[in-house]
Amino acid sequence: MPKKYSEWLAFAKDMAFEAGRIIQQAREESSFVRDYKSDHELVTSTDIAVDKYLCASIAEKYPSHLILSEESSPSLNLEARPSDKPVWVIDPIDGTVNFAHGHAHVAVSIGLFIGEERILGVVNAPFLNECFWALRGGGAFCNDKALRVSGGTDLRSALVATGFPYQKNALVPLVERVSRVLHQCQDIRRNGSAALDLCWVAAGRLDAYFETVKPWDMAAGVLIAEEAGAKVGYYEEQKNAWPKPINGNALLVSTPDLYDCFIEILKVNEFSYSN
Amino acid sequence: MPKKYSEWLAFAKDMAFEAGRIIQQAREESSFVRDYKSDHELVTSTDIAVDKYLCASIAEKYPSHLILSEESSPSLNLEARPSDKPVWVIDPIDGTVNFAHGHAHVAVSIGLFIGEERILGVVNAPFLNECFWALRGGGAFCNDKALRVSGGTDLRSALVATGFPYQKNALVPLVERVSRVLHQCQDIRRNGSAALDLCWVAAGRLDAYFETVKPWDMAAGVLIAEEAGAKVGYYEEQKNAWPKPINGNALLVSTPDLYDCFIEILKVNEFSYSN
Repeated sequence: MPKKYSEWLAFAKDMAFEAGRIIQQAREESSFVRDYKSDHELVTSTDIAVDKYLCASIAEKYPSHLILSEESSPSLNLEARPSDKPVWVIDPIDGTVNFAHGHAHVAVSIGLFIGEERILGVVNAPFLNECFWALRGGGAFCNDKALRVSGGTDLRSALVATGFPYQKNALVPLVERVSRVLHQCQDIRRNGSAALDLCWVAAGRLDAYFETVKPWDMAAGVLIAEEAGAKVGYYEEQKNAWPKPINGNALLVSTPDLYDCFIEILKVNEFSYSN
Repeated sequence: MPKKYSEWLAFAKDMAFEAGRIIQQAREESSFVRDYKSDHELVTSTDIAVDKYLCASIAEKYPSHLILSEESSPSLNLEARPSDKPVWVIDPIDGTVNFAHGHAHVAVSIGLFIGEERILGVVNAPFLNECFWALRGGGAFCNDKALRVSGGTDLRSALVATGFPYQKNALVPLVERVSRVLHQCQDIRRNGSAALDLCWVAAGRLDAYFETVKPWDMAAGVLIAEEAGAKVGYYEEQKNAWPKPINGNALLVSTPDLYDCFIEILKVNEFSYSN
């Protein structure tokens, strides 16, 4: 493990804590305004403020690194990058709808990958006093406690999280999948933060998580889940062009023994949707 | 407001805090075992221990009162009771699946009704340090802060919570309702505690909540939501025999301006389910 990886992780944690403080302060002071992107996706002035802080911090400390950010550089061209170039992938607030509604289930997500490898991930939930983190090959942690997946083997007792797309035309196959999971598992959770759902799989609080999400939603959380023993894969053939470490299309992250069961459940033939 | 109502409320709060301590201790010591009721509904030894504590406390303090409890007296006959007899309605742990999975979204729910009137409700969430409570006509509170519903008027921005039944044959109309809500609202939350969902409508963190639940899931939370300004009603014709104050069949609790919209959305013709 190169020494610089540990340095990057310490830097990422420092940023995640400071970003958490900005988010907490904005809530205490009710000092944020709401706006909507296309597809009625909510964004607040706090998302923008935290994004600026993170991007400026990274650019100052590591000017040669790239930054893929939900709010300021979602269309960064990653095709032409050198294969050894570190890329930071950040979501200033994962769970913006929760944040705006006063919920605690909100996180800052900071990941870094190089070439085909996820290197580090930090997901800090300031209102829950939980910071999840992982370094490739070094295990996953919540604050200072090592994480391990649930180890569940019984589908009927499995607790599964998912999320719902802003694009309403993508809902039909998802509703079919939700129906199948509800029929075969203990229950579903929809907590409103993909990054935290992934960390909760890592912590054994959920047995699995599935959703189609963007790179910034999953870059950090997937490494944390992997390092806690989760199996990571896809329940649909991949069509988009994101690099593999940050490809969140049809993502399935599961305690290992149930992974194959979930792949079967989530395989929906798009010409045969039914209740 | 009779003075005894305030005394009952103070007593209910004391019980809810002590119950919260029992629940926290059980988690810290991992000192509980899991079991399943019919329909694969989870119950833990902590549900039973808290139920015993609550029932014994009420029986000692108010021996003439009735107790309807999820765990020890779910079939209490309420038909023959005198109309002025106070009935305590308790759920020792609302969110048992969450509790067993290490989630924070767990509550003790204690309500009391007389005849056709809800008198008091206390919902204590020990891991979140939030105790919600209300006395009929006296407003609703979280800890010492007065609660008010969101006041939302835009369906497209509405955040809506629901739950899923343990009986899998009841899922088909629910999946249809979830699909409709997802198509027309901001998003759905499935947090896993009906009592807390109701309190979150009271706090304006959710715009609405709908589900078919049992009396102990909703007796306290519905009063808290009502006292915070929510409109309470039903999206299906009532068939069961629970007294009105504790009837959770096809329950809809909403910020008032969106109530009629939700009634329309949730009216599913049982002969025409479709995606």
